[in-house]
Amino acid sequence: MKIRVIIPNSSRDFLESQVKQRQNAVGKEVFVDVMCLNHGPVSLESGYDEVLASPHLVNAVLKAEEDGYDAVTIDCAADPILRTLKEIVDIPVIGAGEASYLCALALCKKFSIITVLKNTVEIIKDNIDKYALGQRVASVRTANVPVLELKDHQKAFNAIKEQAIKAIQEDGAHAIVLGCTGMSSLANPLQNELKVPVIDPAVSALQLAVVMLNMNLTQSKICYCKPIDKTVL
Amino acid sequence: MKIRVIIPNSSRDFLESQVKQRQNAVGKEVFVDVMCLNHGPVSLESGYDEVLASPHLVNAVLKAEEDGYDAVTIDCAADPILRTLKEIVDIPVIGAGEASYLCALALCKKFSIITVLKNTVEIIKDNIDKYALGQRVASVRTANVPVLELKDHQKAFNAIKEQAIKAIQEDGAHAIVLGCTGMSSLANPLQNELKVPVIDPAVSALQLAVVMLNMNLTQSKICYCKPIDKTVL
Amino acid sequence: MKIRVIIPNSSRDFLESQVKQRQNAVGKEVFVDVMCLNHGPVSLESGYDEVLASPHLVNAVLKAEEDGYDAVTIDCAADPILRTLKEIVDIPVIGAGEASYLCALALCKKFSIITVLKNTVEIIKDNIDKYALGQRVASVRTANVPVLELKDHQKAFNAIKEQAIKAIQEDGAHAIVLGCTGMSSLANPLQNELKVPVIDPAVSALQLAVVMLNMNLTQSKICYCKPIDKTVL
Amino acid sequence: MKIRVIIPNSSRDFLESQVKQRQNAVGKEVFVDVMCLNHGPVSLESGYDEVLASPHLVNAVLKAEEDGYDAVTIDCAADPILRTLKEIVDIPVIGAGEASYLCALALCKKFSIITVLKNTVEIIKDNIDKYALGQRVASVRTANVPVLELKDHQKAFNAIKEQAIKAIQEDGAHAIVLGCTGMSSLANPLQNELKVPVIDPAVSALQLAVVMLNMNLTQSKICYCKPIDKTVL
Amino acid sequence: MKIRVIIPNSSRDFLESQVKQRQNAVGKEVFVDVMCLNHGPVSLESGYDEVLASPHLVNAVLKAEEDGYDAVTIDCAADPILRTLKEIVDIPVIGAGEASYLCALALCKKFSIITVLKNTVEIIKDNIDKYALGQRVASVRTANVPVLELKDHQKAFNAIKEQAIKAIQEDGAHAIVLGCTGMSSLANPLQNELKVPVIDPAVSALQLAVVMLNMNLTQSKICYCKPIDKTVL
Amino acid sequence: MKIRVIIPNSSRDFLESQVKQRQNAVGKEVFVDVMCLNHGPVSLESGYDEVLASPHLVNAVLKAEEDGYDAVTIDCAADPILRTLKEIVDIPVIGAGEASYLCALALCKKFSIITVLKNTVEIIKDNIDKYALGQRVASVRTANVPVLELKDHQKAFNAIKEQAIKAIQEDGAHAIVLGCTGMSSLANPLQNELKVPVIDPAVSALQLAVVMLNMNLTQSKICYCKPIDKTVL
Repeated sequence: MKIRVIIPNSSRDFLESQVKQRQNAVGKEVFVDVMCLNHGPVSLESGYDEVLASPHLVNAVLKAEEDGYDAVTIDCAADPILRTLKEIVDIPVIGAGEASYLCALALCKKFSIITVLKNTVEIIKDNIDKYALGQRVASVRTANVPVLELKDHQKAFNAIKEQAIKAIQEDGAHAIVLGCTGMSSLANPLQNELKVPVIDPAVSALQLAVVMLNMNLTQSKICYCKPIDKTVL
Repeated sequence: MKIRVIIPNSSRDFLESQVKQRQNAVGKEVFVDVMCLNHGPVSLESGYDEVLASPHLVNAVLKAEEDGYDAVTIDCAADPILRTLKEIVDIPVIGAGEASYLCALALCKKFSIITVLKNTVEIIKDNIDKYALGQRVASVRTANVPVLELKDHQKAFNAIKEQAIKAIQEDGAHAIVLGCTGMSSLANPLQNELKVPVIDPAVSALQLAVVMLNMNLTQSKICYCKPIDKTVL
Repeated sequence: MKIRVIIPNSSRDFLESQVKQRQNAVGKEVFVDVMCLNHGPVSLESGYDEVLASPHLVNAVLKAEEDGYDAVTIDCAADPILRTLKEIVDIPVIGAGEASYLCALALCKKFSIITVLKNTVEIIKDNIDKYALGQRVASVRTANVPVLELKDHQKAFNAIKEQAIKAIQEDGAHAIVLGCTGMSSLANPLQNELKVPVIDPAVSALQLAVVMLNMNLTQSKICYCKPIDKTVL
Repeated sequence: MKIRVIIPNSSRDFLESQVKQRQNAVGKEVFVDVMCLNHGPVSLESGYDEVLASPHLVNAVLKAEEDGYDAVTIDCAADPILRTLKEIVDIPVIGAGEASYLCALALCKKFSIITVLKNTVEIIKDNIDKYALGQRVASVRTANVPVLELKDHQKAFNAIKEQAIKAIQEDGAHAIVLGCTGMSSLANPLQNELKVPVIDPAVSALQLAVVMLNMNLTQSKICYCKPIDKTVL
Repeated sequence: MKIRVIIPNSSRDFLESQVKQRQNAVGKEVFVDVMCLNHGPVSLESGYDEVLASPHLVNAVLKAEEDGYDAVTIDCAADPILRTLKEIVDIPVIGAGEASYLCALALCKKFSIITVLKNTVEIIKDNIDKYALGQRVASVRTANVPVLELKDHQKAFNAIKEQAIKAIQEDGAHAIVLGCTGMSSLANPLQNELKVPVIDPAVSALQLAVVMLNMNLTQSKICYCKPIDKTVL
Repeated sequence: MKIRVIIPNSSRDFLESQVKQRQNAVGKEVFVDVMCLNHGPVSLESGYDEVLASPHLVNAVLKAEEDGYDAVTIDCAADPILRTLKEIVDIPVIGAGEASYLCALALCKKFSIITVLKNTVEIIKDNIDKYALGQRVASVRTANVPVLELKDHQKAFNAIKEQAIKAIQEDGAHAIVLGCTGMSSLANPLQNELKVPVIDPAVSALQLAVVMLNMNLTQSKICYCKPIDKTVL
């Protein structure tokens, strides 16, 4: 079983630690190849960033299928152009955002998402509406830490923890979903401290991709129709 | 008042008639400039097509603001990357899909949308969910006519009319929204025959852009945050 | 193009300024006639007030059509008996409340409405539910200023601004809808101060009426059936 | 315990049988006084009819309280101006429509309403939305029999039965709510034939009024604020 | 008319006062027999408690029908296994929780429920979701008083009052539903103090049972299908 | 990693094939122990059956934790007393119904569930409402085959296939969820024929349990509070 993890930005700052963390997240019987994009923005923090990344992301997903991978995860909690990516290949494509929400649904009635910046709050909320999961979301809060500053683990930990506590006490959250795959390494320490489930979107996506392969499932092609061939100028 | 109408595909087959129709749709005091894209797919009928068009569409919207236009309409009922386009400029950006739904809301309780192909049904439905308007939509039906074949007006008219009648009789629609801006010229003849409101998305967008300018309104920047400057490789 | 603006109360205190403001809100090519009712309560701040005004409002709308007007706006944010008014004529009838919400929908994901008194909060909320727009409304807040005291512009401005700031900071509003057409003149000054869209319901209605006429649209008669003639004792 | 039943139309055709049926519907310890309006339309089949009836209905409710009645029922399934009527008095005001839905909620998950004419379908649906009960309603169907023709019991019975069967078999209804208080006498015969609960709105309202009195409850005055005294021209 | 009130726990601490209160809640023409269970937990404060009580509750309901009772009320605001209980008999089964919500719906737009402990909040919320009444509920709050400590009336009164005031002022509640039938005697004193409707679930259930019998109604058997006979080891 | 699969009925007819199928569904590194109940009904097809099974199911789950299992799956698509089971232990408890829906959410926008009998349709729908997933469900259909007759694979296959095709063509389903764990072996053959994802609830639960263990997650104890110790008579 071979899964390609595509981080849809061009930053290499996190890459080494991400490669290791993603590979450790699944058993040895799964071959996990983590890549980021050679082109596009160094982080995705707006719809604009998503557009800049999207042609490269499309190509990366097409290439993963060509290269014989069995599934792809999109290692970004904003699920950029996820519908499109599910259209263009037959292998399962799992978004980190959607996967983390599905894990949370099994653990509690209401969860909160802690995203990086106020700029991404509405992007996440649009996804929640598109996925029709609003009744299960207590709140979307922002840690107010840009993606590239998540490298400062202690700062990120403190900022997320502060918002998570508010989510639990003020918004009625029963569990916390980390709203950025750059927060992955913080899930366990946060869970230890908060005593509620804390869900890592990157690993959620990988785990769910394995589930889909184990169950011989892939996205429905009557929901995600294959694009029609056409002239592109 | 200067409005740029951006048709986010590269087909020039319709362009002349579209220019005329859009310009006639508003009074002489509004300068309307209609353009399509030089690059990208000849029609948008999938998420994939939207991705291919999106970098060019972003540039066209940025250029419209630079060129001193007061507002932009995105002349496609699928509202491609509309959140992004509202982020990147300060002038109002109005999508043809959203505008047509807003017009319909003023005219009835439930409307149906007739889109081109089964491939675009879920794209439209995702938008409806994102806009949280599902309770007002009776159905999304497909005329089963590709965008570029809408040039055959009689065929398109018949196919849309057939679906519109089903929408009214079986789904409980009170009004019909045309789900493609390539159907613009059919709105009036269809309304005459169906005896219910038939709403043209292209003109809706133009009209709503004029409203926004008349009222000195533009999209909220706390909903559509300005993208943060960053390195793009 | 001739539009009649019907203010559904009998107060003449505001009338002169309202006439001017409404007429300035549209281009010279639109003839705007503003009237209030000769009978009924001096302001609408309850369902009871609406009932007292409603027979006169019905007559005013019927008369507008008889007088050859092309459209009517109901210049009250509570949209009194709007369904009935849409039933009884063939020309478009646009409510100030509904029009303001539709404008807001094009500008943001969530808006708040600032109404006059606690007495009208639930009336507005009933409308929001009837229009099935609850998912797009952050809150309905009250300025706690009766309609007739809105004449004290500074007091009204301060009271609305205070609630609008709470709506933005505490309720997550991206834009503000003024919940009374008596607040019309405050939209621009409030927008300048709040830096989010502030929407005037009276002008929204006028603008939307023009849109409907430009697009040859009127309310659907299968949603708003013509009343059946019958004996009235 | 004294309850006034107000039939908000001016037809006396049904009155005698209605008086008897309503009085028999409660025990001897409840004094029931049934009245219709001296003025207004002979039946309510549109928003317009409701407006024509509403000043008389307001007066009748105020008078009931003055006359020392303990509660009022509004004997019309369209719940005309129900918010207003709950505002203006302190005694409980129960609408036949709302009462019938509440009874249905205790008996099943989804019910259908059979109304008189297509003209009233959207009025009923507006109420369902206002009451936020849409998820519990399978459908609103029309018997296509005007109110005054309900006197032909066999015709009405057959027409309602036909629609009720469709509601059960095609729409998934578990119970039937009669959508007009003129259908009252048909509830039991229909229930015997259909083998699902069939709910009479007129009696539901009376029963619920008794419940409210037994429990010392009346409508909340922070939801239905007392109208403010003001000048009425 | 004979109604059996089944308190689905085994505590006898409250029983005497409950018997009296329930019997006084209806007229002399209704024979009310109040019983609790001989087995099972002394109070229901978790799903686990419900499971422990449920075989005994099933038997009690079956026995009530055998004994010739005309209806049954389940005297617990958590509505334990209510679907099952409606399946197994033909006589009406009314839950105290559902009945209290239905009464509240007639009195206001939004109500809050004050339950005993944080442990039962989600149980109540699951019911609200199952009944699809979420849009009508302002909040579910906890008095933080275990069922058996409700005997200390003053303590319970103060704790509920404190939460009710928060529900009204902070959550927008128009009425208060008591979330435990052990709180029954507090409904009237709380209503006197709070000046909003306060609804007793135990009496609501009894009243609604009488309504169902008066109207010759019982739960729909296509919603609550009779269980199929089968082998039980 | 040790997972106990609890089939909450007492039938041994399927057991051998179920043991094999569940064990093959996960890798060798997971120890899977499949058991059914010694007591209770031979199949769960009503709320009543669930009540009869529930004390034995509670004990089985408690025992699994005592026996050192790392997780439990409840091998029934009706998710009997799932809230309770999540309350009483600290190890993850995954229901087959919930798990199958979560898998479906990753694969499409709308799915349909094919359950065994009309008796179970409303039980499944109550769950869908409780999980707030109604917007993602196209329909719940019944194969009209009792659980114990699913042993006749060809009959079951044909009946499910017929309903699945209707779900896709008439209800707009993009994927099919099998609504009974007794249908497990049919998922793959149905998927081959229908060309849309067909999801087996039993394996979904097992897979999701593995995911939870891999991610060190279990149900939130502020959503599923530990039951309070108390006297049980």
